[in-house]
Amino acid sequence: MTIHNHEYWMAKAIQLANKGLYTTHPNPRVGCVLVKDGQLIGQGFHLKYGEAHAEVHAINDAKQNSQDTKGATAYVTLEPCSHQGKTGPCADALIKAGVACVVFGIQDPNPEVSGNGLKKLKKAGIEVIGPIQEAECEALNLGFIKRMREGLPYVRVKLAMSIDGRTAMESGESQWITGIEARLDVQRLRAQSDAIVTGIGSVLTDNPSMTVRIDSNDQEADPKTVRQPLRVVMDTALSIVPEAKILYPTSQACVFSIEEEIEDEHLEVLKKKGVTVRFSPRGEDGRLDLLDAMEQLADAGINEVLLETGSELAGGFLQAGLVDEIVVYMAPKLLGSSARPLFQLPLETMDEAVELELKSVRQIGQDLRLVYLPTYLDDDEL
Amino acid sequence: MTIHNHEYWMAKAIQLANKGLYTTHPNPRVGCVLVKDGQLIGQGFHLKYGEAHAEVHAINDAKQNSQDTKGATAYVTLEPCSHQGKTGPCADALIKAGVACVVFGIQDPNPEVSGNGLKKLKKAGIEVIGPIQEAECEALNLGFIKRMREGLPYVRVKLAMSIDGRTAMESGESQWITGIEARLDVQRLRAQSDAIVTGIGSVLTDNPSMTVRIDSNDQEADPKTVRQPLRVVMDTALSIVPEAKILYPTSQACVFSIEEEIEDEHLEVLKKKGVTVRFSPRGEDGRLDLLDAMEQLADAGINEVLLETGSELAGGFLQAGLVDEIVVYMAPKLLGSSARPLFQLPLETMDEAVELELKSVRQIGQDLRLVYLPTYLDDDEL
Repeated sequence: MTIHNHEYWMAKAIQLANKGLYTTHPNPRVGCVLVKDGQLIGQGFHLKYGEAHAEVHAINDAKQNSQDTKGATAYVTLEPCSHQGKTGPCADALIKAGVACVVFGIQDPNPEVSGNGLKKLKKAGIEVIGPIQEAECEALNLGFIKRMREGLPYVRVKLAMSIDGRTAMESGESQWITGIEARLDVQRLRAQSDAIVTGIGSVLTDNPSMTVRIDSNDQEADPKTVRQPLRVVMDTALSIVPEAKILYPTSQACVFSIEEEIEDEHLEVLKKKGVTVRFSPRGEDGRLDLLDAMEQLADAGINEVLLETGSELAGGFLQAGLVDEIVVYMAPKLLGSSARPLFQLPLETMDEAVELELKSVRQIGQDLRLVYLPTYLDDDEL
Repeated sequence: MTIHNHEYWMAKAIQLANKGLYTTHPNPRVGCVLVKDGQLIGQGFHLKYGEAHAEVHAINDAKQNSQDTKGATAYVTLEPCSHQGKTGPCADALIKAGVACVVFGIQDPNPEVSGNGLKKLKKAGIEVIGPIQEAECEALNLGFIKRMREGLPYVRVKLAMSIDGRTAMESGESQWITGIEARLDVQRLRAQSDAIVTGIGSVLTDNPSMTVRIDSNDQEADPKTVRQPLRVVMDTALSIVPEAKILYPTSQACVFSIEEEIEDEHLEVLKKKGVTVRFSPRGEDGRLDLLDAMEQLADAGINEVLLETGSELAGGFLQAGLVDEIVVYMAPKLLGSSARPLFQLPLETMDEAVELELKSVRQIGQDLRLVYLPTYLDDDEL
């Protein structure tokens, strides 16, 4: 018999957690394995809001396998919860199951409850080990963690560009810059997001639906059969037409405007259709205050935002310091110097240049997929 | 004793050939190993124009090791030459050495002599095997091959840019976009080039010297002690100042102008300093005919050109279909939408977009090094 170390079992738990990548919103993705005498006796992950948490699934799984959880070790990617939510506290479930040891990945990021679950376990005489594999466990829930810690969603900007950093021709023509593989990858980004944010410009030009069209196995699926992220349009003057595809189903659509700039009549039409219209104040630059809008989304339980938009709004998010990650799909072509820029970002000297950190690079079809983290955020946070 | 296959020994020969990467110009890089009874008995590579070729070095090496070359197999990356040049024909040397078999990488790319060396060997009763590992052997001499086949040098464009495809701020400020590792890599590109080409704009703005400052082992070296590529300035109206650093030593500098646009007085000053001034006709677009200039360089024995210049001239080369390879160093920063573009390339519709093929990608320091091949060349060539 091979005795595996903590890292091995935690890696299993992380794998399980990832199965909820597209579905747990607004809850975090969590995985759990129960191990006894070096053997896996139960496993589980959180699948969906309102349903059982990972620990309970793992305990039930052990029972179904006729395994005794008494004296087992539980590996769980996130500190077990200690409060009564839609479901009972997981810490209690683990105590009741008689586990001898709990190995956790990260503590609960919510400062108000962080550590409470662990305390409860220790009080019950359970050995508690952790945090281990923190970076991997954090990566499962970048959005949830940021929302809990900062009251803001994790914002990922998706950009498709040519090598010369252009997103569209001057005319706005932009179809099919990248290949089919890159477009499938964008589907994955959408599927893991709580909300897709775009600007009124993109809506008026392309009338996109911005739906998820893949299932949990990344296979093509009817958009009606899979969880759809909230579709959000930044639309200062509420100029969106009620027929815009992105508004349907209206229960999953939301428009941000500045109250003083809209026509009441238009607002009424949208409301009658069931569209949620939210107001944000005017920011310092005279435009819609994006920080306020993001705070509102976080308050509404939005963990991860995918920003799919033109250079103007993308530049606005960047200048507001709201971008956590930039995912660039770079197609092997040159669109030329008249074409539209990546970010509308008027800088004058090299000192003003936005510094980024390269997080990953890989080839995807004929395109490159590059992930960058803006470092201005580090400056603010550290 | 391990019996190695042909590929193993050819790989050795390729390794040897690469030792001449920085020095053989205008000759090709060639490596040769002599193998007898499964043992390496001699090796050599071409180091420098006017000196012995790889085959002769290998034969001499075997002699020095007191090895008998009779009955040996010679592995050579390029077909042995059959003509009397600065040195005697290598085919004759191999025949005289009594080798039983010659394994070659690629045939001589010069259509006028291609195959002659092989014929001579066969006629002498030597077994001839090849081509093998053609792609790798071609890669040693992309410039030499292109010059022989098309009468043009292989043009590599080096670009340092931000993620948003910018090479400098609007003001021209551009120092240190990329990191020190990327800049060292540019030294390698220079060292393997026969000529560095730039535009008068870059010369007037930055007054660069564009020298090679590394030796054959990529160690820092006094520029005076290593082979320097020809420095070429595209300067339609001959506006270069005689003090420009790039002109020194003047024996290694050359300026291209349009004869009707220059001032004779200025020409005299430069000539007196020893600078070579070449004339090209005016192209269809009213600017200096870059194709003619490249043909002149090829006629002068230039195999590989490194184009280090601004977006205007780089765009001109690209539009003229003269670019064989684009090496992009992409720094993890955003220079913004007012900054200077990668290529001055005014395109209007997606149909006009220049398609490229991704040849390689690797991280180099904090930057990415991307190599692309424009596919328009394939269209012309196939």
